[in-house]
Amino acid sequence: MIIRKTLSVRSILEFTGHHLLWLTGWMSAITCVFYFMDWKEVAVPWVSIPLVGTAVAFYVGFKNNQAYDRLWEARKIWSEITNDCRKLAALIKHCRSGEPNVKPEKKIRRRLLFYNIAYLYQLREQLLEPTIWEHVGTSNLAAIRNHNRKRREKLTESYKKELGDVTDRKYLSPAEELYLSKFSNKAIQLLTMQVHLIQLLFKRRDISSVQQLAIQGIVCNFLDAQGRLERIKQTPFPRKQATFSFIFVCIFVALLPFGTIGEFAKFGGFGIWLSIPVNIVIGWIYVTMELIADYSENPFEGLHNDTPMLAICRQTEIEMLQIFGEDNVPEPFHYKGGVLL
Amino acid sequence: MIIRKTLSVRSILEFTGHHLLWLTGWMSAITCVFYFMDWKEVAVPWVSIPLVGTAVAFYVGFKNNQAYDRLWEARKIWSEITNDCRKLAALIKHCRSGEPNVKPEKKIRRRLLFYNIAYLYQLREQLLEPTIWEHVGTSNLAAIRNHNRKRREKLTESYKKELGDVTDRKYLSPAEELYLSKFSNKAIQLLTMQVHLIQLLFKRRDISSVQQLAIQGIVCNFLDAQGRLERIKQTPFPRKQATFSFIFVCIFVALLPFGTIGEFAKFGGFGIWLSIPVNIVIGWIYVTMELIADYSENPFEGLHNDTPMLAICRQTEIEMLQIFGEDNVPEPFHYKGGVLL
Amino acid sequence: MIIRKTLSVRSILEFTGHHLLWLTGWMSAITCVFYFMDWKEVAVPWVSIPLVGTAVAFYVGFKNNQAYDRLWEARKIWSEITNDCRKLAALIKHCRSGEPNVKPEKKIRRRLLFYNIAYLYQLREQLLEPTIWEHVGTSNLAAIRNHNRKRREKLTESYKKELGDVTDRKYLSPAEELYLSKFSNKAIQLLTMQVHLIQLLFKRRDISSVQQLAIQGIVCNFLDAQGRLERIKQTPFPRKQATFSFIFVCIFVALLPFGTIGEFAKFGGFGIWLSIPVNIVIGWIYVTMELIADYSENPFEGLHNDTPMLAICRQTEIEMLQIFGEDNVPEPFHYKGGVLL
Amino acid sequence: MIIRKTLSVRSILEFTGHHLLWLTGWMSAITCVFYFMDWKEVAVPWVSIPLVGTAVAFYVGFKNNQAYDRLWEARKIWSEITNDCRKLAALIKHCRSGEPNVKPEKKIRRRLLFYNIAYLYQLREQLLEPTIWEHVGTSNLAAIRNHNRKRREKLTESYKKELGDVTDRKYLSPAEELYLSKFSNKAIQLLTMQVHLIQLLFKRRDISSVQQLAIQGIVCNFLDAQGRLERIKQTPFPRKQATFSFIFVCIFVALLPFGTIGEFAKFGGFGIWLSIPVNIVIGWIYVTMELIADYSENPFEGLHNDTPMLAICRQTEIEMLQIFGEDNVPEPFHYKGGVLL
Amino acid sequence: MIIRKTLSVRSILEFTGHHLLWLTGWMSAITCVFYFMDWKEVAVPWVSIPLVGTAVAFYVGFKNNQAYDRLWEARKIWSEITNDCRKLAALIKHCRSGEPNVKPEKKIRRRLLFYNIAYLYQLREQLLEPTIWEHVGTSNLAAIRNHNRKRREKLTESYKKELGDVTDRKYLSPAEELYLSKFSNKAIQLLTMQVHLIQLLFKRRDISSVQQLAIQGIVCNFLDAQGRLERIKQTPFPRKQATFSFIFVCIFVALLPFGTIGEFAKFGGFGIWLSIPVNIVIGWIYVTMELIADYSENPFEGLHNDTPMLAICRQTEIEMLQIFGEDNVPEPFHYKGGVLL
Repeated sequence: MIIRKTLSVRSILEFTGHHLLWLTGWMSAITCVFYFMDWKEVAVPWVSIPLVGTAVAFYVGFKNNQAYDRLWEARKIWSEITNDCRKLAALIKHCRSGEPNVKPEKKIRRRLLFYNIAYLYQLREQLLEPTIWEHVGTSNLAAIRNHNRKRREKLTESYKKELGDVTDRKYLSPAEELYLSKFSNKAIQLLTMQVHLIQLLFKRRDISSVQQLAIQGIVCNFLDAQGRLERIKQTPFPRKQATFSFIFVCIFVALLPFGTIGEFAKFGGFGIWLSIPVNIVIGWIYVTMELIADYSENPFEGLHNDTPMLAICRQTEIEMLQIFGEDNVPEPFHYKGGVLL
Repeated sequence: MIIRKTLSVRSILEFTGHHLLWLTGWMSAITCVFYFMDWKEVAVPWVSIPLVGTAVAFYVGFKNNQAYDRLWEARKIWSEITNDCRKLAALIKHCRSGEPNVKPEKKIRRRLLFYNIAYLYQLREQLLEPTIWEHVGTSNLAAIRNHNRKRREKLTESYKKELGDVTDRKYLSPAEELYLSKFSNKAIQLLTMQVHLIQLLFKRRDISSVQQLAIQGIVCNFLDAQGRLERIKQTPFPRKQATFSFIFVCIFVALLPFGTIGEFAKFGGFGIWLSIPVNIVIGWIYVTMELIADYSENPFEGLHNDTPMLAICRQTEIEMLQIFGEDNVPEPFHYKGGVLL
Repeated sequence: MIIRKTLSVRSILEFTGHHLLWLTGWMSAITCVFYFMDWKEVAVPWVSIPLVGTAVAFYVGFKNNQAYDRLWEARKIWSEITNDCRKLAALIKHCRSGEPNVKPEKKIRRRLLFYNIAYLYQLREQLLEPTIWEHVGTSNLAAIRNHNRKRREKLTESYKKELGDVTDRKYLSPAEELYLSKFSNKAIQLLTMQVHLIQLLFKRRDISSVQQLAIQGIVCNFLDAQGRLERIKQTPFPRKQATFSFIFVCIFVALLPFGTIGEFAKFGGFGIWLSIPVNIVIGWIYVTMELIADYSENPFEGLHNDTPMLAICRQTEIEMLQIFGEDNVPEPFHYKGGVLL
Repeated sequence: MIIRKTLSVRSILEFTGHHLLWLTGWMSAITCVFYFMDWKEVAVPWVSIPLVGTAVAFYVGFKNNQAYDRLWEARKIWSEITNDCRKLAALIKHCRSGEPNVKPEKKIRRRLLFYNIAYLYQLREQLLEPTIWEHVGTSNLAAIRNHNRKRREKLTESYKKELGDVTDRKYLSPAEELYLSKFSNKAIQLLTMQVHLIQLLFKRRDISSVQQLAIQGIVCNFLDAQGRLERIKQTPFPRKQATFSFIFVCIFVALLPFGTIGEFAKFGGFGIWLSIPVNIVIGWIYVTMELIADYSENPFEGLHNDTPMLAICRQTEIEMLQIFGEDNVPEPFHYKGGVLL
Repeated sequence: MIIRKTLSVRSILEFTGHHLLWLTGWMSAITCVFYFMDWKEVAVPWVSIPLVGTAVAFYVGFKNNQAYDRLWEARKIWSEITNDCRKLAALIKHCRSGEPNVKPEKKIRRRLLFYNIAYLYQLREQLLEPTIWEHVGTSNLAAIRNHNRKRREKLTESYKKELGDVTDRKYLSPAEELYLSKFSNKAIQLLTMQVHLIQLLFKRRDISSVQQLAIQGIVCNFLDAQGRLERIKQTPFPRKQATFSFIFVCIFVALLPFGTIGEFAKFGGFGIWLSIPVNIVIGWIYVTMELIADYSENPFEGLHNDTPMLAICRQTEIEMLQIFGEDNVPEPFHYKGGVLL
């Protein structure tokens, strides 16, 4: 997640600068043909351009809106996970059945807590697996894929210390890790193991039947939240709409110089050359709108627009440990280079 | 569900190519009449076109937005079903009443699990029944129906092995299948049978009263989810809005050459011929927008935009079996030709 | 609910055809004045028209969107009612307190089921009462009211057999019907009677306290659903917005020929006559947009856009009887003339 | 709430008529300056107007949409209150703990019912207190405030009999009324008193622990609903957006004659005078859009767009008394002059 | 929160006045170049401007809509917190287990109430911590930061007495404050302490198991609400969209005089000077739209658009004390200078 108030000029250029090259080429070429070859008939009446613009505006706007919805829903769900973690920690710390002759099962409760922290990082890891429609995973656009993989690696690299710190803190025993390795969806299994421990607490009469319901309900919320995150991860923004948004922008930019050249020519001599920078700026604006939408679509790509899962996991880990009353509490993570991972 | 980052040129042509034919015919015909018959008075002032365009933009946009909402709601509901399946498996695996002298009813629990897996595939089957407003079922547009039936068959054919694999794994006994065959809505009956088994577990004191409530609550969620899926399946996008969206696009495309020819003619001699490709492109853009909306409306047609129910069912089946601790776990399905069924 | 893929030409003409008459009259009259009286100064500059168009587009769009929301919300609530009926049938079939020495109260359970089926049809009837802002009930536009009453009667007539079939199946005893007749809101009373029966089952120890909560919760859901349906029925789309949407369309259509005539005149002689069909088409488009919104606003008018309550009630009746294990199960209803009631 | 299908001409004129005066003045003045002083240079190129129009359209549209959302949310919450009243009446009528040796506490139950009816009318009264941003309460626009206060009084006057009828039916004893008078938020206190009575029923073993939870849950719903109504009442539509919407409309209407006069002048002599009525109509349309939004913002002003709280309260009162089986049931209220209070 | 019906002229000038300076400079400069240097070729055809305008309109509109959603969601959550506070006070006042031989633990209940009031003010304080993307915290735009810090201080100053009043009323003992100081998220810890007290009440048999569930559920709601508030606080409106919205407005305003000058020039001599005020007004409108969105984005900045947390906390404090029956109830706060803090 980018957290600077405004992007720096450098990051704007990194994001959209290379598109200025081909835009300059195309806009200049058409103007030159018009001017030097005096081929007046290549002009297209201006009125055709807004008709294409309507389609572009609709699809680019649609893509931007839906991308924001996906991103914001992802953020919402992670916020719900945080809330449920806090609830879980508070309940497993304080709930007692109050039955006589029952010793509090401090150890089982602690294991339950640790399973849940391990769950958070496991879930994050699973969500970062690339899919074939993400920029870092796409199979049919190799240049884009490789470019974005490098960006992802660079970003990951800058958080190397933090990621190492996470790996070093072990919340599962080696035996538990081995057991987990057999399952296709490890995060789900970590939740199932929590259901098992809750049942154990109930069986040993350490929590009451109603309390079991309440604590189990929280674990069920994690199942829900994970399912919704996986839905966002595994269902792309509809590829038809996405592809045609891109195609319509291309058509629009391609037609643009043909449509405006006639109008610029009316101002005579020098005026026609002014069409080049103006068309480049306009073309750049539309390409940028498409780019912003395209890069906001997938909130778990490991790139700059991602939900800051690492920071959320760590923050939640700290709070859970503090609520439970543990001593060995780690430090929170800080953002680097205006981006929070 | 299409899962390539961008559609291939081939699939774009398959989807919209044939419309280029009649667009070429119409645009050329009007230009020829204008040019060869010198019938200058067929021109319509440009200003009329955007007025039609407003209506087109509103309805096509409305259709696209609502179609996306239908599709995304369908996807959401299937995600909730997945979540509830995981919860169900975890609870029927671990919940025990903890009463003395009660043996866990492993067999009943297993039957409950199997009923639920059978339910998933049964639900999928019921949702794929064609309705009379879907492309594959429409009674008043035979050409479109037959074309889409072929596309559906081809798509189904490519997943033949997977579908056979599903049929081969039996989760119901022949007696149970016979019993089910009497009911109009078999999926509902499979849920009712689960309610019965849950009551049985409670009766035999294997689960407590509160646990019965929790597990039954999950089955009630399936009833909800199914009802919502059936609502999407059985309620078309309002046909009035859909039909007039189509009519307005037709009027727009029909008027387009009349409206632009006057403007193109101003550039003189050759310019007028340029109107043909430009008009074709613009017409194609609007027809494509209408087509995208029209083919995204119904998420359970068995076509390329569908919710990938087969993959979801199988994935859920695997996870339920793993959570429950079964050994005979099947393989997940992989996408074919950029489409996940 | 209309369920044909596309409306037939006949129903389009029935719906909007008569507006072509006055549009033709108006557009021709202005053109004739302009042409024969050579009254060039009646022209209005084109630029004024889109300014009116913006207001029209906003309000007509707003009306269409909100009308769709009302309609879709109504459909959603009926879907929730269906789900809750299924849940109710499953729970009252299978829930037992499991206490020793308690005989299942099959009779009371059956009466509960029958009350609920009677409730469905009663609710449908109450929702179909005309209000004074609906087309079939409006007091200040008698022609529209009478026209739509005839359409409603014709539609009802085509489902005569089905409606008779519903009346013939009695789920209440004559004594119960007499008792009900005293209440202003009979549907609510039918639900209260269900709450009473559930309490009776609990009192006789046939269901447990937790089960009472669960079954009562479903009846409370019916109360919620009915309240929401009544909200849609009894709260019109805000009449100010609706009226001004209509007025703005009228202003727009009235100004249209004044605004375009100058532009058409530029093409000379014959061109001006071309303005008549083009203006008629444009005017018709805007009038149709307003009409579609106006006729989609109220989902319980008994007209063609209605939620198909009769079919839903019957389908639910069948499923409840099958879940409960009754033998005398009626047939489902089929659509007639492309419309499902 | 206005409930006529279409507003009468009279009420349209009452609502917007006086704005025609200053519009006529302004539009005529500019045209006269242009014509008689031959001051051709006051014209502004047409192209500037739509740029202002975009800003106007966005803010006026935004204001209309949000105003509708506020109004519709208010209506929804009142519908939920109705539902919960029905549930409360049904549960306090029928729920019994079923414990032996317990007499039903008919009296306490009845008091609970009466507290709730008193609560409804109390809530309505609290919501009608003017705030300083409402038309009837604004401190910085005295003319508008006084005008609307008169309208409110006139409307209240027409329902005088009904309001008297409400005051005459006493649901609280004088002692209870005295007790209430000490509290800043009387409605909340009426709910707290209900919580107290429910606890009393539980204490005397007349309802079970689970039933207490259910009935208390309903009272908690009232607390929720009231909080949400107070949120709408106490949080105005953001005043910055509202003020600038108004300013932008003023700028637009002020610029309008300058922008169109040049275009009208092209038609020569008489044409220029035609600009006056056309500009008045256009200006009136935009002013009306702003007015509609401005008067729909606050759903509890005591004016014509209000949620019809009086009718809802009375309807709910009747139903609660009937469900509970009371004999002394009042009559429902009917709308007056096309407006339901 | 601004609560005047319309902003005063002074506050409009304070908010947007300084932008008039540079707008005047830029618009005059271009016109002078055009007029005095007779450099006719600097003109850009008008048609280019609306193309930029589309992008501006989309992003500025998007930003305004999302900013409103953030603000309204924040307000909604605070309203939910208020509701839950009322529920909590009512339940801890009245709920009793009804078990024999149990004395009501009035002291623990009171501490629970006090913890919750302390929680409210603590939560407010935590939400007001500046982040690096807020106007008062931004690191890369020092002038804006310092300007807004002064505005915040001035606003805080005007509520000095009220804030002092809050600090003076102590709801926590010094020991409790010391204990809290160790935790990174004090508000969460205050909730955990409430969970502990609720468990204590249950342990001493003062509330039943079901009542514990109900009261604990309310505390869990606070955890949820806080998590959602922190999500809004800690997740900025996506910075890419925000930055490009600003850039596109700049491009638009920069191009504006080039695009309109040619049109104004057509009116001859004096006309060209008229372009300056008209362009300033149009530029000011677009800059204002961007500003409104930019300052509405963050609802917890301590500035004028904030959720009025102080007033809400105090109001809730009063109601909780009254519901609980405390004597020492403070006064509500009143707005100052048209702004409620």
